[in-house]
Amino acid sequence: MRVLILGADGYLGWPTAMHFAARGHEVVAVDNYLRRTLALQTRSEPLMANPDLEQRIEIFREVTGHKIAFRVGDCADYPFLQSVFRESRPEVVIHYAEQPSAPYSMRGYPEAALTLRNNLMTTLNVVWALHQETPDCHLIKLGTMGEYGTPQIEIEEGWIEIEHKGRKDRFLFPRQAGSLYHTTKIMDTDLLWFYVRMWKIRVTDLMQGPVYGLSTPEADRDDRLAPNFHYDDLFGTVVNRFLVQAAAGVPLTVYGRGGQTRGYLNLLDTLQCVELAATHPVRNRELRILNQFTECFTINELAGLVQQAGRALGLKVEIQHLENPRQEAEEHFYQPAHSGLMELGLQPHYMSAGVIQDMLERVLRYQNEIDQAKIYPRVCW
Amino acid sequence: MRVLILGADGYLGWPTAMHFAARGHEVVAVDNYLRRTLALQTRSEPLMANPDLEQRIEIFREVTGHKIAFRVGDCADYPFLQSVFRESRPEVVIHYAEQPSAPYSMRGYPEAALTLRNNLMTTLNVVWALHQETPDCHLIKLGTMGEYGTPQIEIEEGWIEIEHKGRKDRFLFPRQAGSLYHTTKIMDTDLLWFYVRMWKIRVTDLMQGPVYGLSTPEADRDDRLAPNFHYDDLFGTVVNRFLVQAAAGVPLTVYGRGGQTRGYLNLLDTLQCVELAATHPVRNRELRILNQFTECFTINELAGLVQQAGRALGLKVEIQHLENPRQEAEEHFYQPAHSGLMELGLQPHYMSAGVIQDMLERVLRYQNEIDQAKIYPRVCW
Repeated sequence: MRVLILGADGYLGWPTAMHFAARGHEVVAVDNYLRRTLALQTRSEPLMANPDLEQRIEIFREVTGHKIAFRVGDCADYPFLQSVFRESRPEVVIHYAEQPSAPYSMRGYPEAALTLRNNLMTTLNVVWALHQETPDCHLIKLGTMGEYGTPQIEIEEGWIEIEHKGRKDRFLFPRQAGSLYHTTKIMDTDLLWFYVRMWKIRVTDLMQGPVYGLSTPEADRDDRLAPNFHYDDLFGTVVNRFLVQAAAGVPLTVYGRGGQTRGYLNLLDTLQCVELAATHPVRNRELRILNQFTECFTINELAGLVQQAGRALGLKVEIQHLENPRQEAEEHFYQPAHSGLMELGLQPHYMSAGVIQDMLERVLRYQNEIDQAKIYPRVCW
Repeated sequence: MRVLILGADGYLGWPTAMHFAARGHEVVAVDNYLRRTLALQTRSEPLMANPDLEQRIEIFREVTGHKIAFRVGDCADYPFLQSVFRESRPEVVIHYAEQPSAPYSMRGYPEAALTLRNNLMTTLNVVWALHQETPDCHLIKLGTMGEYGTPQIEIEEGWIEIEHKGRKDRFLFPRQAGSLYHTTKIMDTDLLWFYVRMWKIRVTDLMQGPVYGLSTPEADRDDRLAPNFHYDDLFGTVVNRFLVQAAAGVPLTVYGRGGQTRGYLNLLDTLQCVELAATHPVRNRELRILNQFTECFTINELAGLVQQAGRALGLKVEIQHLENPRQEAEEHFYQPAHSGLMELGLQPHYMSAGVIQDMLERVLRYQNEIDQAKIYPRVCW
């Protein structure tokens, strides 16, 4: 398969590029280093330095023999993106090329404007380039479970049938998000659904929960092939922050009461899900929406798991509740469906004590590199 | 009241500016002539030439004695817009500053990109400038009935309670539109609803149907104060197109079967609605959504009304069905609620034979200016 990966330098993009290349697919990787630039500007560098995309691709080729083509450029620049589609003629495009941080999008006006403009223009450009150059190409777009927010009703996979005053219709499941970043993902879905109906393109929109993990068969071949590991309050996720706090000997910082519940998944399962979506394409004029996570945890449960793993390694791990820097429900109903990817064949890797302990051991090797200034909230909303 | 009107050179913006100024309010009018520029670029000039905003304001002052302040600038330029809020300190801002044409947004990539970027960045900027400079200012935003599309269920005013698997919650009414322009209005609503929740701002989002009419008490004082009258396939509406076709002696062009039903309103009622919204502000942290139209017609009914008016004036008016250049349902269920503005006090001006005949007589005075090349569809989707 000819696979085009946009945002291929990212936490998910790079392991995805290796995953498809290792399975013999023809991979073209695109990135403009936006996330690296924003991380540099905001002192949010990852714990382990990552070689740039060109270097990673060269190391990957030396270690495995598999080639990955690459282009450095901005997907929000239409002539560039159109040339990429024209030259690579993808059968599948995997679109990760967005500003990925909720707190960054809430930092101030410039960050809000960048997030809105970048994410929307990139998605518009992907749809147009696909329509103009390779109209049968299957677009796999990364959305987020955060689009749904935390409603009082069960969350279905993308769609809901509404019966109202004796009549019925089927609609996109209602969505209301907790950050501007998540709101741009709602808008992406609006945009995709519009062009799916108008142009009969084929799209899978994956509503993904927070991903954790550093280990994939390809990444484990060489430390220099590791995924990015951000642990700061902007580009890091809560699992990474807790691991780094445990390694640094400072309390795990739970925001508010800690009853916030989300669906999580292992990086290995993201790779499986994206591959399952790619190998089971949808028909033209179909927007398939799949909820991509394997199990739900509260923040308190995650803190407890990291605390246990730390204690097993002889660390003293405390938990501290901070005033919540975000506006969000701290105790809430949460029952999201997630059967679609299981039906396609997903074999979940659950968050066992062993998985957390492996990650923590990895982090401990970089204990001296931890910058404690990065692990406390710098953005409030 | 200090009233800031964004997009004040538009078909609705200019009559709104005169309406508030004539009632003694302090009006600041802002426009960058984007619509004039796009109309010029696409040969879509209005039937009657309109003086520019500065000239209109001067004529209005000469004729009525009322002053309107104005700033020429781009609301998508944040420093400009912030300075406008800082200097004018509005109590109400009426936001019309968007690319308003559905067919223009479907013309090609540059037009799609301009529409998405302009409309979204303008709304983001309005919200930010309001939040930073005048956080208690009431934002009145023009949305469109087109956000809802033509669902199989009754359309409520903005919100719907959904009961699902034994639980209930209240959500934005589901929306799926028929053009990119209309989709940007959906995204505007997503954005407004997000910031209303985060920042406790106060917003009224008016879901307006197509507006017709050239006559207002202020505009009728001098021909040079008339609203813009576009009749082309891009910036014109169906009522204007039919009137011009009747005046030009060519058939009224109905797209497809003509059962497309929408809610329409007279320009006089738009002015009433916007004023009612302004004089009945919402609380902080409230997004009020009102469906702004007074009566529903099919395209065939509109063609019939114009045909009757034409015959009454001795014109020979034929009706011709063209292949529909748009993807839309040509026969469909349509039952939208619209009681909110009536409850606030709206006194509708219905589309009587007299109203149509008055408009047609006005158009006939400019019969020689009609460019027939403009009244056939140039954009298909």
